[in-house]
Amino acid sequence: MANAGPIAIVIHGGAGTIAREKLTDEVEVAYRQKLEEAARAGYEVLTRSSKEKGSSSIDAVIAAIVVMEDSELFNAGKGSVLTHAATVEMDASIMEGESLNAGAIAGVRHIRNPIRLARDVMSRSDHVMLIGEGAESFALEHGYELIDNSYFQTPQRMRQLQRIQNTTTGTALSEDNSLGTVGAVAIDRNGNITAATSTGGMTNKRFGRVGDSPIIGAGTYADNSACGVSASGHGEYFIRAVVAHDICARVMYKGIALQQAADEVVLIKLKNMHAEGGVIGIDPQANVVFSFNSTGMYRAAIDKDGELEVLIFKGISD
Amino acid sequence: MANAGPIAIVIHGGAGTIAREKLTDEVEVAYRQKLEEAARAGYEVLTRSSKEKGSSSIDAVIAAIVVMEDSELFNAGKGSVLTHAATVEMDASIMEGESLNAGAIAGVRHIRNPIRLARDVMSRSDHVMLIGEGAESFALEHGYELIDNSYFQTPQRMRQLQRIQNTTTGTALSEDNSLGTVGAVAIDRNGNITAATSTGGMTNKRFGRVGDSPIIGAGTYADNSACGVSASGHGEYFIRAVVAHDICARVMYKGIALQQAADEVVLIKLKNMHAEGGVIGIDPQANVVFSFNSTGMYRAAIDKDGELEVLIFKGISD
Repeated sequence: MANAGPIAIVIHGGAGTIAREKLTDEVEVAYRQKLEEAARAGYEVLTRSSKEKGSSSIDAVIAAIVVMEDSELFNAGKGSVLTHAATVEMDASIMEGESLNAGAIAGVRHIRNPIRLARDVMSRSDHVMLIGEGAESFALEHGYELIDNSYFQTPQRMRQLQRIQNTTTGTALSEDNSLGTVGAVAIDRNGNITAATSTGGMTNKRFGRVGDSPIIGAGTYADNSACGVSASGHGEYFIRAVVAHDICARVMYKGIALQQAADEVVLIKLKNMHAEGGVIGIDPQANVVFSFNSTGMYRAAIDKDGELEVLIFKGISD
Repeated sequence: MANAGPIAIVIHGGAGTIAREKLTDEVEVAYRQKLEEAARAGYEVLTRSSKEKGSSSIDAVIAAIVVMEDSELFNAGKGSVLTHAATVEMDASIMEGESLNAGAIAGVRHIRNPIRLARDVMSRSDHVMLIGEGAESFALEHGYELIDNSYFQTPQRMRQLQRIQNTTTGTALSEDNSLGTVGAVAIDRNGNITAATSTGGMTNKRFGRVGDSPIIGAGTYADNSACGVSASGHGEYFIRAVVAHDICARVMYKGIALQQAADEVVLIKLKNMHAEGGVIGIDPQANVVFSFNSTGMYRAAIDKDGELEVLIFKGISD
């Protein structure tokens, strides 16, 4: 394949009910800065010579997601939402569109950057998906440090859990950023598309619950012939709708553009299921796509012309 | 919907390398009898009046799969293959094609009939997928007895594990029925299609490994507008190929028949990935489909004319 194709990266920091009036200027600025930092971290990888080690779209999405996992602002890594038992359990997945290789982990509690472990499951194991203590035992064998669960927990998430547990229903459903995900999709100079997603899941979720983020086909999917997609939203519905693969399947079999395919799934199919959320994607021509049916989605992209955009609400200037 | 549509059920007891010369007459008869018993158990449910409780395609696939989970012949429930640590860890999933509701469990060790628990996750929880101890804690709350892991272990599976661990590579890959799955797809008088899959996974798998069986879209998928599918094969590839949803997507978006869609995925796409296995399916007209690229697949169906067939090898009379 030609070694001079266009490069691009798109990231999200969660889709959901984002009330503009509740977002202070200070917090909004913090989100925009961190989204820009994450997008630039991934893009920098893509600009390296493709002969250099660490210049692939795999490396790019990892670089972007690690920035968000390390930030308390997003529901992934540090700052993940809390389970019903007030602990953090994280899920992540990655898929690379040339070989259709994939890796996923679910229910890990002691891995600083879950997305790195998903990548090692893809690259260094015979398996695609490892869960719970089995995933952490694999991590130990591969030199990971197991860190205390308290590292991930923040006072803000504890208040959020208490607020939800004090409501009469104690519902685990979407409420002021009580769910969310981070994700990234990138295309490198070789035309290779990688998609990846990482999350703490849903506030007040019961112990052992797995959402769409670590499910290849639901939260994450990549195929160089069609697209790469990372999703964020109410995971139960996203699993049932096989969101990421369904979008790619519409591109492949209906021959429609990625934006149209994403809108059909997010604005029609998911909306009809009353499922809130959104997706990001990139097609083989390096076009960047967003689609969401929630009031907002934290998102950023650096497109094939090198233009950065950082957005939170609906409307292209928001 | 009309209350007099055609009914049908199709089941499988695993696809893989089945050497005719290694299968004694006695064992072959045992397999054929158990497959027939499972298919009849499911079909009997479908023949009940649709006003009766317990007459749906959900009830039918559960009835069929429980017969196979309770038999030592198949890699699900009792008789599941052993992990590297010589324990049994089971996965299961179910999806119903009218509402697109789904339930799945992974990594359970003490549930006699994992498929029943998957159904209860679908019907009695807010979640689609529960894993490990979280799934078993949910089971306890819903009146399940947690049984000792030794119940599932059989001398035959221990010998199989030792044989694989004594080879130089210790590979966990397909070898004389070292992987396998059971599954069922049914359509009831209301035209509702349900698909379900249950498995012990792969012999010598590392602890925490999850294959395609509990992954909605990969091992199991159902949508009344297109088809229901249950898969059996090398799970890592089946996840990456999103097998069950990809077959349904080809029916929906390419407008081809279910048999052709299944053959495209199993005989071309999976074959090109060097992935061994197969699928069963039913379309909205109650046509039954098999497709596999392995030497055999334990399978049976009672079709819309009430005709039973029980097959193991390739060829319609085998």
